[in-house]
Amino acid sequence: MENSGPAPTWRFKGNEELTQASAITVRGVLNMLMDNLDPNDTRPVIPLGHGDPSAFPSFRTTLLAEDAVCAAVRSGGFNGYSSTVGIPPARRAVAEYLSKDLPYELSPDDVFLTIGCTQALEVILTVVTRPGANILLPRPGFPYYEARAGFSHLEARHFDLLPEKDWEVDLESVEALSDENTVAIVIINPGNPCGNVYKYEHLKKVAEKARKLGIFVIADEVYDHLTFGSNPFVPMGVFGSIAPVVTVGSISKRWIVPGWRLGWLVTNDPHGVLMKQGIVESIKGYLNITSDPATFMQGAIPQILKNTPNDFHLKIVNVLGESAEICYNRIEDIPCITCPSKPEGSMFVMAKLNLSLLEGINDDLDFCCKLAKEESVIVLPGVAVGLKNWLRITFAIEPSSLDDGLGRIKAFYTRHAKKQ
Amino acid sequence: MENSGPAPTWRFKGNEELTQASAITVRGVLNMLMDNLDPNDTRPVIPLGHGDPSAFPSFRTTLLAEDAVCAAVRSGGFNGYSSTVGIPPARRAVAEYLSKDLPYELSPDDVFLTIGCTQALEVILTVVTRPGANILLPRPGFPYYEARAGFSHLEARHFDLLPEKDWEVDLESVEALSDENTVAIVIINPGNPCGNVYKYEHLKKVAEKARKLGIFVIADEVYDHLTFGSNPFVPMGVFGSIAPVVTVGSISKRWIVPGWRLGWLVTNDPHGVLMKQGIVESIKGYLNITSDPATFMQGAIPQILKNTPNDFHLKIVNVLGESAEICYNRIEDIPCITCPSKPEGSMFVMAKLNLSLLEGINDDLDFCCKLAKEESVIVLPGVAVGLKNWLRITFAIEPSSLDDGLGRIKAFYTRHAKKQ
Repeated sequence: MENSGPAPTWRFKGNEELTQASAITVRGVLNMLMDNLDPNDTRPVIPLGHGDPSAFPSFRTTLLAEDAVCAAVRSGGFNGYSSTVGIPPARRAVAEYLSKDLPYELSPDDVFLTIGCTQALEVILTVVTRPGANILLPRPGFPYYEARAGFSHLEARHFDLLPEKDWEVDLESVEALSDENTVAIVIINPGNPCGNVYKYEHLKKVAEKARKLGIFVIADEVYDHLTFGSNPFVPMGVFGSIAPVVTVGSISKRWIVPGWRLGWLVTNDPHGVLMKQGIVESIKGYLNITSDPATFMQGAIPQILKNTPNDFHLKIVNVLGESAEICYNRIEDIPCITCPSKPEGSMFVMAKLNLSLLEGINDDLDFCCKLAKEESVIVLPGVAVGLKNWLRITFAIEPSSLDDGLGRIKAFYTRHAKKQ
Repeated sequence: MENSGPAPTWRFKGNEELTQASAITVRGVLNMLMDNLDPNDTRPVIPLGHGDPSAFPSFRTTLLAEDAVCAAVRSGGFNGYSSTVGIPPARRAVAEYLSKDLPYELSPDDVFLTIGCTQALEVILTVVTRPGANILLPRPGFPYYEARAGFSHLEARHFDLLPEKDWEVDLESVEALSDENTVAIVIINPGNPCGNVYKYEHLKKVAEKARKLGIFVIADEVYDHLTFGSNPFVPMGVFGSIAPVVTVGSISKRWIVPGWRLGWLVTNDPHGVLMKQGIVESIKGYLNITSDPATFMQGAIPQILKNTPNDFHLKIVNVLGESAEICYNRIEDIPCITCPSKPEGSMFVMAKLNLSLLEGINDDLDFCCKLAKEESVIVLPGVAVGLKNWLRITFAIEPSSLDDGLGRIKAFYTRHAKKQ
């Protein structure tokens, strides 16, 4: 093949920070675990590692949503570029959808359409970045926050979620962590990775603490309404008049369509603080230099949000509730792992690993690697979400597969149990 | 509404760099022009400002593409997360599609699926950033490059495109601009904003210059195959063995579906230089911390790329060619603007403004603001693409509207012509 003369000294090179930032994502760890699978194991792989049950029959999305997307595509009216903040009917539909659970009305101008919840997080973590700034993140949490904060040189400071108190925020440690450079606190509710659902009073205390500290709340509500315990879902935006709240969400989880890539970032801010502080302008500025969700997805969203039959939502919540029950009960039967409480929302539960009952297992990562290799079961090691020697287990898969997977974990335990 | 005590001092504020970065985008300038429209003018607005003809009947996409997307949605097989680099069948389809015009075969591993060409540019401009690095950009060019480089603190250095030489790259100025911190040169072909199409020999010289300088080429080929003059489209990847080429593209322009948000970033690099220099690892790393194109769009792409009837492509190219002809001829009839050459590709032409023939028009921006106000015609001022007192005119609209728009520009000229 032709070239011109001897190889030159190439002057460019990759940005190592990017490789480092991505090493700590859930996807990065899961890919590493997948590499440990035994190709000679003929059993199906049981994916208890991530929150995407879309491939399972019990979690098939509603026909109405498929119809809405196809109608938008067929109309030919959504082939062009969208405005960078989202098309007006889509913004209005999200505002109306979320306002149903709030004591005030959101305006369409409060809503910014994003490429899934991922881009909403990208936007807000970029917008708050400035030299020296720090952000308060939950531990355990969702490692995308750490990855994105690292990329932006935004310092991450971690407060604890308390397993013995249904994973409530340790509010005292929040206060101790913060200083004049703290900009926001992140609350994930329903909880990922803990499967908890916060009570109204606790969320109010978080808002009051934020107000006291002069910071705003980033409310990650991507699992909104996926609750099946005694605590109903309360949106953080309810407390937007105490401290400003930026809510991020999407149709990914409630409609079981994470691959459709339609989410939102919403300012819940009745006193207009985010506007005054320039956050809203920065959000618009950043959206001007990034890509947008598919315009036809935006065209479909009013129909999806307004007209999805409630039966569909009930079915999904029921399957999740049953799966959570199976998961919790089967784990009680595996001596080396313990759940501090029964999951009441989202798609996950955190289980603590008792290594003293196991022979030849060094830590949670080792447990997960060997489990993948020997049993073709993928479970996320707690270290990936900030809690070493715990496991994050997804119960959002077909109940029969879940049963199979937990059976294999039990077999794994039995094989590796320390001899008395 | 409840809150807790007196208003605190809020500690967070927006990131001003974001607002500044986005001020120079095409969308930012067009929004400003739209604000100048006269609401009392009952005539339709003629949008000659941006490259999105999807709303016009002559530019309706092919039924096959709509069918492919709806089939992917209906299958239920693409509701889940995609891998961050793209799903394998989509990567393979893009590799096969682009290999048809190359002297070697691309591998699926060379292809990264992106959220339109916008995200592909975001990725590569982020990946090459390091302290002190600079990148060579064409003037006139596409201001998204400057916006994104500014956001990443990547220094932009501009080389000239020469209007008297069919907008060829001024290769001498390229060499003078570069130093040991230069990482890449950007080539947009077919040309935006110039509507030119580069010859094989010229592109080869660009590759040789890149090799001499030790830099790689970013080939923006989002308008690939939209050519209607004497020069055929030659992909820059043809010269990948001379210097590594990163090609960015999408279905947005050739299929007239910019709102579908499906693009790609492709390494054309037979000698594996980009791999060796860590660029490929950085691309993967960055894709791990950003969002992905809708999975069902990826599911639809093999069908779209393989089976679109050639008649559709011919029709689009014919309409564009006719529109370019109308545009060029009508401009010849307007004394205050001149095209250095007839457009042969893409959707744009650059026309030089002769202010000495006009009364009371200060510059290109003033021309465009008053044109919007008085004639409801939107044209992009050259200053937005780096050439003051030029205009970027889109001919990719319904021919009858184009004719109407150019008639209004003529009327505008007549009204503002300097009295002798």
